[in-house]
Amino acid sequence: MRDKVIGIDIGGTNLRGAVVDREGVIHKRMKIHSEADRGIDKLIDNLAVCITDISQGEKIKDIGIGIPGIIDSKNGIITQAPNILNANDYPLRSALNDKLGKDLNIVIENDANNAALGEWWMGAAKDVKSMLMITMGTGVGGGIVLDGKLWTGADGTAGEIGHITIYPHGAKCNCGNYGCLESYASATAIRRMVHEGLDDKSLDTVLRKTTANVHVEDIPRIVTEAAVSGDEFSGSIWHRVGVALGIGIADLVNLLNIEMIVIGGGVSNAWDLFIGAALKEASARALRAPMKTVKIEQAYLQDDAGILGAAHLSLQSPE
Amino acid sequence: MRDKVIGIDIGGTNLRGAVVDREGVIHKRMKIHSEADRGIDKLIDNLAVCITDISQGEKIKDIGIGIPGIIDSKNGIITQAPNILNANDYPLRSALNDKLGKDLNIVIENDANNAALGEWWMGAAKDVKSMLMITMGTGVGGGIVLDGKLWTGADGTAGEIGHITIYPHGAKCNCGNYGCLESYASATAIRRMVHEGLDDKSLDTVLRKTTANVHVEDIPRIVTEAAVSGDEFSGSIWHRVGVALGIGIADLVNLLNIEMIVIGGGVSNAWDLFIGAALKEASARALRAPMKTVKIEQAYLQDDAGILGAAHLSLQSPE
Repeated sequence: MRDKVIGIDIGGTNLRGAVVDREGVIHKRMKIHSEADRGIDKLIDNLAVCITDISQGEKIKDIGIGIPGIIDSKNGIITQAPNILNANDYPLRSALNDKLGKDLNIVIENDANNAALGEWWMGAAKDVKSMLMITMGTGVGGGIVLDGKLWTGADGTAGEIGHITIYPHGAKCNCGNYGCLESYASATAIRRMVHEGLDDKSLDTVLRKTTANVHVEDIPRIVTEAAVSGDEFSGSIWHRVGVALGIGIADLVNLLNIEMIVIGGGVSNAWDLFIGAALKEASARALRAPMKTVKIEQAYLQDDAGILGAAHLSLQSPE
Repeated sequence: MRDKVIGIDIGGTNLRGAVVDREGVIHKRMKIHSEADRGIDKLIDNLAVCITDISQGEKIKDIGIGIPGIIDSKNGIITQAPNILNANDYPLRSALNDKLGKDLNIVIENDANNAALGEWWMGAAKDVKSMLMITMGTGVGGGIVLDGKLWTGADGTAGEIGHITIYPHGAKCNCGNYGCLESYASATAIRRMVHEGLDDKSLDTVLRKTTANVHVEDIPRIVTEAAVSGDEFSGSIWHRVGVALGIGIADLVNLLNIEMIVIGGGVSNAWDLFIGAALKEASARALRAPMKTVKIEQAYLQDDAGILGAAHLSLQSPE
């Protein structure tokens, strides 16, 4: 029985890896740039550096890796990963083993799925059997854990909570649909709502100054600061985020009757500004029994969720 | 190992029971009035009559029963069943064993869940691992089968596909929410859409004559006949049913990446009148990969789905 595995979380910017034991304790960790924008070969180099470094002195044969994209877990292939250059249909498992000159037991999975599994294993959902995680970041991702196992569906694409339709005639989403949860509860959505508001030249808001030329990922923090300082328009944006999230939560509760929904990602740092509206909306819409059961919790593990989920996936895989 | 079990499907009107073997073959069947409106005691009497009759000459110790309501399967209790008089919090399993003077292995489940399991076991979804069933009747019910097992959630209420929100500001649903799938794709919804249309006195439609004083369950058939005969308004109602269904299908596909969605229930007999709009809407909204995978099929087993699902549930239960 293996005592330790490696869990890795690949992002568009960072690559995080750690040696994790069966109890979920992180023994050694490393964070480097993923350089995903420089292409898959560069990413493989960086993966090899990370794995070689943290596994020094350990006999580790098992690695779990989370990737932002659509993954063919069974075959160890990245099907599609818009944030990694040239990574489509890339055989990550075999390429990484070739690079390392080894025959490691490598499992790969979507990063949002791993984050859900991590929160289920060691985080906010530690004591429940079934949970969903909603990750509110640049987009809105999700993962579904049923009876302690990821539900990834027929092709591994399940859990796209961000692409539930909230408002059928709503804002266009990156996916092509209209009115997705992602179009109302992501950093990208908040930026759009800010811009739409600013189009009204008579609108009095501090955001007119503070959001000019700001990166999309910084927008939620700025809108939070403004809302906390009493900027009414900023408060109304968070209210809209909450209402959309609440409609989505009601769908999930009615459909899956899960024990817990964990909400994480950078946008969720504004928790107090949207969770009230979300719970009010969800309670008004969901069926009474499953709504009474479900707990809605803030994510707990932050950046470690993906690493721990990847490690757990590796520990669950056949030896 | 048991060779045969009994599967029973209780409806507001009928009670259907059958002896079913491990291969899903129905050996003996019976259909009587459930008399659910006369109260749970009368229903228990009728259940006993059915079970005693069809099990004559057989050594059957296992029974699966489907009930229209919220079920506590673990404890064999009907939590809530609006269509059965005095059935709330009723210990069906123990009461039925008492009535029969036996100690049978009785499992109970929601009727829509059983129908889903039946279609998965012996019907339209026979060859897939994961599927959903949407039952379009007076209301819209649903059931979820993942890797060959019902997903019933933390309290047994999962699968309420009819109560996914399609239009957040849409028609009020019986459940208290607004714009549920049930408010656009059930017999009740179709009746409402007919009435709303007829409020416009200038609207020219044959429905003005044909739907007066008609029972809700007959409305879909009448609107179907009118649409087929070229009544434009009737055609537009089926189009609206299809669009709402398509929005719901896209949600389900994105969230669960299941292999098949089976659509049944009386309203679904108008298949050709709504499925085109449903598929068009779903394809426009769902993510490409899971939409390409999912098959959308008409239910196959009709009234036998519930019986076979109940029987399969019984066969799956511990001996």
